[in-house]
Amino acid sequence: MKAELINPFLKATKNVIETMAQTKVKAGTPHIKENRSAYGEVTGIIGMSSETISGSMIVSFTDQAILKIVANMLMEPPKSKIDDEVVDAVGEITNMICGGAKAELAKINHKFDLATPTMVVGKGVEISHYSSDPTVVIPFETDNGSFVVEANLSTKTQT
Amino acid sequence: MKAELINPFLKATKNVIETMAQTKVKAGTPHIKENRSAYGEVTGIIGMSSETISGSMIVSFTDQAILKIVANMLMEPPKSKIDDEVVDAVGEITNMICGGAKAELAKINHKFDLATPTMVVGKGVEISHYSSDPTVVIPFETDNGSFVVEANLSTKTQT
Repeated sequence: MKAELINPFLKATKNVIETMAQTKVKAGTPHIKENRSAYGEVTGIIGMSSETISGSMIVSFTDQAILKIVANMLMEPPKSKIDDEVVDAVGEITNMICGGAKAELAKINHKFDLATPTMVVGKGVEISHYSSDPTVVIPFETDNGSFVVEANLSTKTQT
Repeated sequence: MKAELINPFLKATKNVIETMAQTKVKAGTPHIKENRSAYGEVTGIIGMSSETISGSMIVSFTDQAILKIVANMLMEPPKSKIDDEVVDAVGEITNMICGGAKAELAKINHKFDLATPTMVVGKGVEISHYSSDPTVVIPFETDNGSFVVEANLSTKTQT
């Protein structure tokens, strides 16, 4: 994936978490995914597709990071564990990040629609993208723990 | 989801597993998903989207079922555990099932494109779909264990 395809995901992530959850976010250096491991305990997965593009994006949070982010979103004290409300918030965050990236990418003529997010909860889960194109991992830090965004975007061969 | 939207997933699943893996498949009665649990140890997730539709489909296999299905696909003895080749096969099966359903649904004017499949490996993983519409679960039996297909398809509100 070219930098012009990665930056929209980076910017949208910072924007969504900082705006929705008043949580300062520091992006690390994007790199290529080398293994199947998921990063965190709660992961949102969303598909992107059009006649010319297919892709998938995941946002994977450590327990600590997402509990604080959701607390900030709801303006409540952090919950002690991942519950339905937290899982739903991860679905919403996933949708909003990918929606933000979609709007930016449309400007450079990469147009696609968003599928319905799916959320995965579990420790030591392995997640991989079924694609011959590399997956880009963008690490993020908050004051209360870290999370990653992974994106895989391929241009379909026209038939 | 109406029956006319469920049957294409049921038919495509039977067709893909029986054709690609020479494995007899018996479909059970579809029902509405009531909890967040994933069914099996290996799950393929795929997004569907267009300007009018968004959705997600998962195929979740028990260890035993997928090891035998992949063995039949590769015409080799079953592997002892889930490895990269099995995970890739789940991605391919997910793609083919959803591709089959897509072709059938296009005939009744429900048109969408497929996103890139994502594969999740782990025991006791919880998976849910971020949608206010119900998720339909279709259970399947083989001689070597069972698996499920879940589909969630929503018509977008036009703005």
